[in-house]
Amino acid sequence: MIVLGIDPGTATTGYGLVRDGVNGPELVAYGVITTPKTLAMGERLREIYIQLRELLREHRPETAAVEKLFFQKNVSTAMTVGQARGVILLALTEAGVSIGEYTPNEVKHAVAGYGSADKPQMQQMVRTLLNLREIPRPDDAADALAVAICHLHSYKYKNLS
Amino acid sequence: MIVLGIDPGTATTGYGLVRDGVNGPELVAYGVITTPKTLAMGERLREIYIQLRELLREHRPETAAVEKLFFQKNVSTAMTVGQARGVILLALTEAGVSIGEYTPNEVKHAVAGYGSADKPQMQQMVRTLLNLREIPRPDDAADALAVAICHLHSYKYKNLS
Repeated sequence: MIVLGIDPGTATTGYGLVRDGVNGPELVAYGVITTPKTLAMGERLREIYIQLRELLREHRPETAAVEKLFFQKNVSTAMTVGQARGVILLALTEAGVSIGEYTPNEVKHAVAGYGSADKPQMQQMVRTLLNLREIPRPDDAADALAVAICHLHSYKYKNLS
Repeated sequence: MIVLGIDPGTATTGYGLVRDGVNGPELVAYGVITTPKTLAMGERLREIYIQLRELLREHRPETAAVEKLFFQKNVSTAMTVGQARGVILLALTEAGVSIGEYTPNEVKHAVAGYGSADKPQMQQMVRTLLNLREIPRPDDAADALAVAICHLHSYKYKNLS
């Protein structure tokens, strides 16, 4: 079973794919979808939509998770992230992929064991849990992998109970 | 030339289509796309996307406008409206429809002549400008028509100058 984690943004959307391995989560792929500021917003959203569909076709995840973005304090940022989130939820729904949502605290709890873990700690945990030599870069990709690991734990637990 | 105005929302997205008539703007169609709360967010966004594409196929507007939503004070609301806005901008871009954006003040100026017009005044102006017997209902459809009228004025002016 492959799980997709997404950290949505208009300029940079991070993604991370993990598999349910024998000894815990295993890395499948990670990266970012970036769109240039010079493009109109509609074009940028279309780019995110097209590239995410391509990822879904290639890796065929069973389920996906997107972070719940309560931490955005700026209304204009929330609107922009919401727009990226909208086309992401659309692409996932069209592909028949179930969608989980987690708060940043839930992701931290699942990955680092406590909700107040900072970014370097989280990135080290992602590296350790996936047996990677280096911390995944850029940050948005590492964040997306953390969401994927969180969702894998939660999804397995739900389907066992 | 047909112009589409949109008032985005997850539960209710208003739309209004106006034509550039000999004696000013003429009504083509208006209404709302509604989605039930019982559906998952991804399904609701897909519903908006599908129904908007249907409208675009039917009426083939040359250009469209969506309100800039700076007035949203609530971050969580801004995120939700942003999600609806994201799939709307995607559908418009895919259809090759140019996109204008206006602040509520700009819409009020264009339709009522002053930026502090209240909702009943705006609705009466929309009714008068389009020679309608009654105020268009619901509010989201009337708001969308106001955006369409604003865009028609601005778009004609830009293409003349």
